Amino acid sequence: MLEISEIFNAAAVLKGVARKTSVIPAPKINPEADVYLKTENLQLTGSFKLRGAYYKISQLSDEEKAKGVIACSAGNHAQGVALGAQRNGIGAVICLPAGAPISKVEATRSYGAEVCLVPGVYDDAYARAVELQKERGYTFVHPFDDPKVIAGQGTIGLEILEQMPDVEAVVVPIGGGGLISGVAFAIKTLRPEIKVYGVQSSGAPSMAASLQEGHIARLTDVSTIADGIAVKEPGVNTFEMCNKYVDEVVTVSDDEIAAAILALIEQQKLVAEGAGAVSVAAVMYNKVPVKGKKVVCLVSGGNIDVNTLSRVITRGLSKSGRNYTFSIDLADKPGQLSGVCTVIAAAGGNIISVSHERINTSAEINGCTIRIELETRDNEHIAAIREALSDKGYRVLN
Amino acid sequence: MLEISEIFNAAAVLKGVARKTSVIPAPKINPEADVYLKTENLQLTGSFKLRGAYYKISQLSDEEKAKGVIACSAGNHAQGVALGAQRNGIGAVICLPAGAPISKVEATRSYGAEVCLVPGVYDDAYARAVELQKERGYTFVHPFDDPKVIAGQGTIGLEILEQMPDVEAVVVPIGGGGLISGVAFAIKTLRPEIKVYGVQSSGAPSMAASLQEGHIARLTDVSTIADGIAVKEPGVNTFEMCNKYVDEVVTVSDDEIAAAILALIEQQKLVAEGAGAVSVAAVMYNKVPVKGKKVVCLVSGGNIDVNTLSRVITRGLSKSGRNYTFSIDLADKPGQLSGVCTVIAAAGGNIISVSHERINTSAEINGCTIRIELETRDNEHIAAIREALSDKGYRVLN
Repeated sequence: MLEISEIFNAAAVLKGVARKTSVIPAPKINPEADVYLKTENLQLTGSFKLRGAYYKISQLSDEEKAKGVIACSAGNHAQGVALGAQRNGIGAVICLPAGAPISKVEATRSYGAEVCLVPGVYDDAYARAVELQKERGYTFVHPFDDPKVIAGQGTIGLEILEQMPDVEAVVVPIGGGGLISGVAFAIKTLRPEIKVYGVQSSGAPSMAASLQEGHIARLTDVSTIADGIAVKEPGVNTFEMCNKYVDEVVTVSDDEIAAAILALIEQQKLVAEGAGAVSVAAVMYNKVPVKGKKVVCLVSGGNIDVNTLSRVITRGLSKSGRNYTFSIDLADKPGQLSGVCTVIAAAGGNIISVSHERINTSAEINGCTIRIELETRDNEHIAAIREALSDKGYRVLN
Repeated sequence: MLEISEIFNAAAVLKGVARKTSVIPAPKINPEADVYLKTENLQLTGSFKLRGAYYKISQLSDEEKAKGVIACSAGNHAQGVALGAQRNGIGAVICLPAGAPISKVEATRSYGAEVCLVPGVYDDAYARAVELQKERGYTFVHPFDDPKVIAGQGTIGLEILEQMPDVEAVVVPIGGGGLISGVAFAIKTLRPEIKVYGVQSSGAPSMAASLQEGHIARLTDVSTIADGIAVKEPGVNTFEMCNKYVDEVVTVSDDEIAAAILALIEQQKLVAEGAGAVSVAAVMYNKVPVKGKKVVCLVSGGNIDVNTLSRVITRGLSKSGRNYTFSIDLADKPGQLSGVCTVIAAAGGNIISVSHERINTSAEINGCTIRIELETRDNEHIAAIREALSDKGYRVLN
């Protein structure tokens, strides 16, 4: 099927279209490894998807191009196909479920695609796309299970080898498997000694399960904050290629993904979406054997919904002990809150918000409960503040 | 004073120490200009400050190096000096006000500096630093008003010229003026036809005011979310250099800065701090005359406090109608909240939090007020939900 010459061809075609994204050192992600990031979140459209979509479209016949392309996606693939078609000078229709986030719809439109909002869920949008394809002769651009699409994504593998010739391991997110199939094929063909690891969300481990069972397995349900890789079933091509070229596939939890997103923000000043951060999470939490090795984590995309980002930040702060809310029972008389605040200030806590509740079944009839939200250094700091409050006789409930 | 040869020397010294940060296209920041970002937020320590600090330290005599350096800063300068000293193999003491954000203290320590927490505010920490300098013979590393420091920052100007030879304008944040002095000096010396614009926060316009008045002006008070450029008074050197080499200095508001931070996250997948985003804000809001021009915005740093980031995102979401909190008066009886939730769900709103207040002077004695925070699509969506609630007879207060 795929030949390495096709990946080189894709790289030539993509020159001047896709950005050659930087490889950036990330020394704090895992101090026991030498970690770098291939920043495809800084790619045009905010993800690697442009590569495969553009290359696929560029290889269509003139007749196919004249009719245009269609795709079904509420995410990165939609934007990749839209821009890929625009840059090839042809028309694109993107079917999305009507409830898709407005930001995604707008982004897709902004690249000149015709957006077709279909009532219902993804499967309804998909069904409509298939109808339209038949009616109007569009070419369907599959998000992952197409050799041309895989070849386009594989150009990232060539870039990594060029940008970091002494790399020893590459860690790649897996949804349907198009990205890792191309990258692993390119790397294993040219430099078989380099390890290629795949990472899925534990809430959507379709490729991991399929490889374990030895055949394509379909998950009945997927649930993860990494919506870009929430895929129920790998492709026929991608399953075969992962089986052949990928050394190991591991999974990470939503909490680990959230921590990786936050680490990328704080340490690297980079915004990654959940799907883009799973590779980093796998290295942070030692899910892949890269100790002492030079490893590149492929950060595949950065199109995270800002509401989700906000929640990830909040959760991350509280998990790492940098945000804590104490509930304290107080006698309801003047000076109590001031006393608590003094203790907290002396212990170095920074108060963000205070809420004072007088209706509370657990407090004394004349008492009240205050909830004080603090910025703290870490979990030890929280424990120290709790102790300081208890020492002064305050009744800390948590 | 400064010679261009010194900037070239600084560039040679910094090779292999500071990263040569990428210049990245930012097509949506202002559709009427051809906008690029020089990403010093991706620099080691998360800001450009390493350049000046490292170069300054590298030029000390052996005797001075043996005694070590001292600086006073709660921000990027602290981290720059700490890492600069560590990489030069010498000791550094950083004085910080005791109330400095914990994350900054930890970051400074992580680069091996001795942290001296001084009770009081910045001026107290500064006084202590001067004392320590006298007692122990440390060299004081000024955050901006030092020709060596300015030369180090100027290396960014050389890189921009090399990375984007056809640039027509460069937009640079100004706090004390060290960064823009170096960049403007390098650019105007080598390519005088290129425009250099400076940007300050309207809450801390010390350089803008000084240039306007024709002498150094000291602001009595500064207040801005761009804490990295909240400087009351420019330096003697930097004032003179800005006067000579900078074409124009403009200001942007905190709201404009917040919008720029959010745009960088959403469009560019980059995290910038307030000070780092003012250059982008100036181009977004047409404060500088760059229409039709190829312009590089210097994004000077990304060390935004994560709690601040969370607030910026929240504000941005609510401004763009993607987050809204309804207050609704309800009779205090079973089933009311459930009714409201049903209406909201049918209208496609996603409930994030609910608070139920029974003590409320405005509600009826048997009533209560609920506050429901929602994720919404846009302002039209909010209006539609409000209408749906009113249609069902709920008393929506806002």
